Amino acid sequence: MGGPEVENLIALFSRLPGLGPRSARRIVLKLLREPETRLAPLAAALQAAAGKVRSCSVCGNLDSADPCAICTSPARERRICVVEGVADLWALERAHIYHGVYHVLGGTLSALAGRGPDDLSIAALLARLERERVEEIILALPATVDGATTAHYLAERLKKFTVPVSRLAQGVPMGGALEVLDEGTLATALRARSPA
Amino acid sequence: MGGPEVENLIALFSRLPGLGPRSARRIVLKLLREPETRLAPLAAALQAAAGKVRSCSVCGNLDSADPCAICTSPARERRICVVEGVADLWALERAHIYHGVYHVLGGTLSALAGRGPDDLSIAALLARLERERVEEIILALPATVDGATTAHYLAERLKKFTVPVSRLAQGVPMGGALEVLDEGTLATALRARSPA
Repeated sequence: MGGPEVENLIALFSRLPGLGPRSARRIVLKLLREPETRLAPLAAALQAAAGKVRSCSVCGNLDSADPCAICTSPARERRICVVEGVADLWALERAHIYHGVYHVLGGTLSALAGRGPDDLSIAALLARLERERVEEIILALPATVDGATTAHYLAERLKKFTVPVSRLAQGVPMGGALEVLDEGTLATALRARSPA
Repeated sequence: MGGPEVENLIALFSRLPGLGPRSARRIVLKLLREPETRLAPLAAALQAAAGKVRSCSVCGNLDSADPCAICTSPARERRICVVEGVADLWALERAHIYHGVYHVLGGTLSALAGRGPDDLSIAALLARLERERVEEIILALPATVDGATTAHYLAERLKKFTVPVSRLAQGVPMGGALEVLDEGTLATALRARSPA
């Protein structure tokens, strides 16, 4: 239906997150129809990223520089925000409300998935604390059982460093209608209520 | 948030059909996390397609061969299915019910969009009929006002060739519940009813 090159492209696109055969075909068709303005630039951008982007050896962020632009920025505060993955780091950066540095764990502890402390970059975090001057550790882990387990474990391991350890507030999300919220969130928000 | 290479990749992906900034970020993150198994193969496949895939000079299909594999297949019947775009050609090929060749118009006539006969590959279709031995022309154009206008116009232009011209049946789609169908489809299906 267009030769092996086209079939191969469709197969590769359809394995990307959120895409299936139908959306992959639509994308490939669009790319092939506009080879100069879409296909060639995308191919070049992927090639450039393949050669340059890697994991930051300090924090685990993905960047074309190592250490990454965040780790080397002199404007960043000396606090470390611990996140599960790079997607969480990007989400916090997009919000423009955090001005410290990060540490990407690469997952959460999970008995079910068989992920223990050695599977996460916990040793690297402890090593950073030995080495760097850090004012605060913020645990920004997902509000799940595994996330809470991981936060609890980390809080224990971090006790010996005397650095303040905090975690994100839990409660009603912005724009969240109470009637559609789950009971766990409602209970947490009620317990953590503050003076109006 | 990952350097200019990452930002550029996200921007290019988010301009693809069906994708936005959020899904583009998810895809780029997946690609960067698996450079060997995802990013590099995709970059290579795009490069290969960029160099090889072009429009078939006979029918307008996209293929790495010119004329395309369908046009040159000896197994194909000598009938031409006229479609609006390559996506429609691909859809018919996936259904495995048509064994003739194609002609891609590249659009439909549209007074609103200012597309006249010279903007479509109609002259090329007429030239094929002068040159090739053709048993039937099937107009497989969209069931829209512009599609119907184009089919009507083509039927007029094709009269002098004495080749039988047919068009796709219209009616209730497979699995279509009557209650959700529009009135136009229902009216067409009722008018074109056949003995049970």
